[in-house]
Amino acid sequence: MSRKVGIIGMGHVGSTIAHGLIVQGAFDDYILIDTDETKVQADSIDFADAAMNILHHASIVVNDYEALADADVVIVALGKIALQDNPDADRFAELPFTAAQVPVVAKELVRVGFDGVLIIISNPVDVVTNLFQYYTGLPKEKVIGTGTLLDTARMKRAVGQHFHIDPRSVYGYNLGEHGNSQFTAWSQVRVKGQPIGELVPTTFLEALSAESIQGGHRVFYGKKYTNYGIASAAIRLALAIVSDSHEELPVSVYYEPHQTYLSYPAIIGRQGIVEQVKLNLTEEEEEKLAISANYIKQKFAEKLSE
Amino acid sequence: MSRKVGIIGMGHVGSTIAHGLIVQGAFDDYILIDTDETKVQADSIDFADAAMNILHHASIVVNDYEALADADVVIVALGKIALQDNPDADRFAELPFTAAQVPVVAKELVRVGFDGVLIIISNPVDVVTNLFQYYTGLPKEKVIGTGTLLDTARMKRAVGQHFHIDPRSVYGYNLGEHGNSQFTAWSQVRVKGQPIGELVPTTFLEALSAESIQGGHRVFYGKKYTNYGIASAAIRLALAIVSDSHEELPVSVYYEPHQTYLSYPAIIGRQGIVEQVKLNLTEEEEEKLAISANYIKQKFAEKLSE
Amino acid sequence: MSRKVGIIGMGHVGSTIAHGLIVQGAFDDYILIDTDETKVQADSIDFADAAMNILHHASIVVNDYEALADADVVIVALGKIALQDNPDADRFAELPFTAAQVPVVAKELVRVGFDGVLIIISNPVDVVTNLFQYYTGLPKEKVIGTGTLLDTARMKRAVGQHFHIDPRSVYGYNLGEHGNSQFTAWSQVRVKGQPIGELVPTTFLEALSAESIQGGHRVFYGKKYTNYGIASAAIRLALAIVSDSHEELPVSVYYEPHQTYLSYPAIIGRQGIVEQVKLNLTEEEEEKLAISANYIKQKFAEKLSE
Amino acid sequence: MSRKVGIIGMGHVGSTIAHGLIVQGAFDDYILIDTDETKVQADSIDFADAAMNILHHASIVVNDYEALADADVVIVALGKIALQDNPDADRFAELPFTAAQVPVVAKELVRVGFDGVLIIISNPVDVVTNLFQYYTGLPKEKVIGTGTLLDTARMKRAVGQHFHIDPRSVYGYNLGEHGNSQFTAWSQVRVKGQPIGELVPTTFLEALSAESIQGGHRVFYGKKYTNYGIASAAIRLALAIVSDSHEELPVSVYYEPHQTYLSYPAIIGRQGIVEQVKLNLTEEEEEKLAISANYIKQKFAEKLSE
Repeated sequence: MSRKVGIIGMGHVGSTIAHGLIVQGAFDDYILIDTDETKVQADSIDFADAAMNILHHASIVVNDYEALADADVVIVALGKIALQDNPDADRFAELPFTAAQVPVVAKELVRVGFDGVLIIISNPVDVVTNLFQYYTGLPKEKVIGTGTLLDTARMKRAVGQHFHIDPRSVYGYNLGEHGNSQFTAWSQVRVKGQPIGELVPTTFLEALSAESIQGGHRVFYGKKYTNYGIASAAIRLALAIVSDSHEELPVSVYYEPHQTYLSYPAIIGRQGIVEQVKLNLTEEEEEKLAISANYIKQKFAEKLSE
Repeated sequence: MSRKVGIIGMGHVGSTIAHGLIVQGAFDDYILIDTDETKVQADSIDFADAAMNILHHASIVVNDYEALADADVVIVALGKIALQDNPDADRFAELPFTAAQVPVVAKELVRVGFDGVLIIISNPVDVVTNLFQYYTGLPKEKVIGTGTLLDTARMKRAVGQHFHIDPRSVYGYNLGEHGNSQFTAWSQVRVKGQPIGELVPTTFLEALSAESIQGGHRVFYGKKYTNYGIASAAIRLALAIVSDSHEELPVSVYYEPHQTYLSYPAIIGRQGIVEQVKLNLTEEEEEKLAISANYIKQKFAEKLSE
Repeated sequence: MSRKVGIIGMGHVGSTIAHGLIVQGAFDDYILIDTDETKVQADSIDFADAAMNILHHASIVVNDYEALADADVVIVALGKIALQDNPDADRFAELPFTAAQVPVVAKELVRVGFDGVLIIISNPVDVVTNLFQYYTGLPKEKVIGTGTLLDTARMKRAVGQHFHIDPRSVYGYNLGEHGNSQFTAWSQVRVKGQPIGELVPTTFLEALSAESIQGGHRVFYGKKYTNYGIASAAIRLALAIVSDSHEELPVSVYYEPHQTYLSYPAIIGRQGIVEQVKLNLTEEEEEKLAISANYIKQKFAEKLSE
Repeated sequence: MSRKVGIIGMGHVGSTIAHGLIVQGAFDDYILIDTDETKVQADSIDFADAAMNILHHASIVVNDYEALADADVVIVALGKIALQDNPDADRFAELPFTAAQVPVVAKELVRVGFDGVLIIISNPVDVVTNLFQYYTGLPKEKVIGTGTLLDTARMKRAVGQHFHIDPRSVYGYNLGEHGNSQFTAWSQVRVKGQPIGELVPTTFLEALSAESIQGGHRVFYGKKYTNYGIASAAIRLALAIVSDSHEELPVSVYYEPHQTYLSYPAIIGRQGIVEQVKLNLTEEEEEKLAISANYIKQKFAEKLSE
């Protein structure tokens, strides 16, 4: 019945996702939505101007919520870039803006009867994902945040660079909040057939964590936005969903033991979260996860009670 | 010996080209060059942060002219966006800025011994392509401008939309200057198995031309830059070169009959322009081509004699 | 709602189509059907053994007609290779075998309520396509034969080789029966911006026709089957359908003027044939088409009256 | 400088590799070599007949060893299918035939000065890889066998099916001889964030091993050859090499500790084996590896001393 994707929010991230998908012929139908009609129309014509020179056909529709009704996946990338540029890289600075949009967008999704999988990118992503689940009433397994899929990619980039190997040959995850409390579960990371702790001292792992986070900052402060890393994470997630791949990926899911959204590995398929993975974390890692969980829960509760 | 591409100028267009190529796994080695070191490093890390979630491996090097020595293709996308935003969409407003960069970049390419194919995107593209050929001393067939490959894509978009067909099933070209004097050679355009003139009246062709040009303006004024259309044109050209495809594409080439660079269909391969195509244009079209040619020639001569 | 394809008949052609689609990640769900259960299971496991090393996820189901109910496209590639190997390359030698299968397969498709687009490859393809339309009762625009899409590709290969250009830069079509009465409509063929008749004498066109046909024979007699050319034609058609591309392709369609299936260019989309193209053929070409049409009509009538 | 690959031996496996690569546009230049000139010419024309309907350009040359001189990768897929079909699935049945071909092919590769990476598929692959290294005199890191990359894929298929997850989300390897003495290093296998031994009892691991091996047999006896699994392994390896990806893959490499070729994870790049990985195997697994190693060594020594 063809592959159909919606993208809500066509800023740097949303339009990079659209470009990445279209170039690969990943979907057949694209619904691009933005409150800035002029910008989204401009992107749409620009993609149409690429059609002759691109390998795959893409059908693009602009600002039509009705067309989302039978979409496989809708990706929410709305945000306000001006709020992202704060000295502490605090993703919660965006919350007042984004949280105000959630009920508006959610209402439209409910109105048109969307029942595919919702991927949330907007920051602070764990809270915003939870808000979207709350306002749409969609089953929890169908509302997923990109969460630490990006942080994991950054960790693997740093580890890969150190060991001179492809990041795709590093195994492991970053967990918790996609924010300042996230952490690499080093007990789970394996590289060159070994637990990473066998290859480098613990102090060096901290240096790798620092390098991983610092890289993200260099991207943001170097161009005032980040797009390729996060877009590739959303694209991978969208493809896992539409192809029902049952890949294991760390994403922001409703994690029962802590009764909140946070990032933890899960099996991804056409229905969203197919199964929750269970890790044997160290005690210290479990504590870090609890801290992340409590932070997200508290922020979500505050928002709801406003 | 692997595929290697250089991109000089990592603004909206250069970085969109890099993204489009990397997502497709089109090349193995990427050399990204920009005078804004912070920006190009930011893009490079951002691409590295995408590596875990992308299907193909990309090796990226930043601001290393030496690495261009054995590149298959170097794409020049330098420009000054502030100059593009003028009320008449006059691409010559950028010439003073861009022309000043040409000898600098050309000298570096000559110094490192680059002898692949040079694709020029920077506007006004016909004059800038000619300047690059002049300053690098590369054979004319190895210095190519994207020219009206984009205008052709826009024409096919407009025609395709009118006839409800894929732009890739429209045959024909826009010719001449990639600028205000460009024109569609309607005598060559075929759609649904017919010369387009059999299907719609001549007056309507003018409406299609207008729609084609207007679309470009809506993109530019809608987001203050254009990137997807032009990036896809450059990518297609780069792939035709590296794969030695011998595709026929309208690009800015040194056209002997008028002794200037201008856009005209040519066969593209690993050595650049493999062969010049000869069209049977109408008298009126030949006149338009001559006007375009003279305009470019004069602007190029003016620039050289400055 | 994801892309789903069925392939009925997993011989050389069917399995090559499956491989080509899976390697490209073209569809999400594959239903592979063959009366030789052992063979189709072997292919299915072999594809599963490739999953770790392939870029895209594929869900494969074997011999389950029910799963075809909501397929976008079903490709029929059944045939009996032993019958193909006759000294005259007469595709009608397969008719008795294939025609006997049509009602069986059609009944199953009707039973499960398939209402996607049916692509027929089995030879003699024009008659078999007509039989499938007859027995399934599907609308004519939803039952399409690959027809001369392959012959056209062979013509473009021969023309491309002669002119040293990419076959994709040759414009034109072969028409009529996908069999001995097919012909190149040379009046429509353009290469290097010219009608081909301007570039080579008429006698040479005959040599190109001969070379085009002979190439097919060299493939068949060289390995006792042909698969890559025909599989790529079916794949292209399937992708045009699922992506609703509205590409123009010469395929076997029910052609009103002659009241029979035969190959003629049409616009292809998600509903199958979106629109019939009208060519300005020469009188001689129209005669050839009429001969092809009458031949197919007669063979179809004979078959029905058996 | 473009991507160039050679394939020596165009039987079921070689031609499936060519198809998989061409469909993806993985290389620019293909050199196809087979002693059966009629067959390889047939495949070449068949691929040319696909060119119009394929997304990427491929330049194909047949039976030209000289063209291999500057190939990035040469894949050796020669074999005699009649010898493969023996009741014990004994890959050594092919050795007399294949071993006789090695000096002939190696001599040609040396003559033309090939210095890229050689991928060996021909069975018994560990011995044949060793023979190719011996006769070509290429550095050991540049001669690689596909080895247990296929067995690993089969293990991941079996594990993935049991746990309902994508084989690409199973971590671990099969090691040793690509033959009856190969084994899964279960101590290394992780699935759903756990060592597999935490999730299922040891006896069940034996059932998974059995299922993994049996699957291969069902493929072979079901169609009298296997091609998709092995072709995808060779393709992945070729892409890792040409893109210098530094992926970790279990392949047949010269393993210093046992002074023989056998399968063990290694980092793969443009120079072939970039680095040997070191695993912490159990004592029992080390014994199995030693048995595999001794078997391969003995067979290689026997062959050399013939």
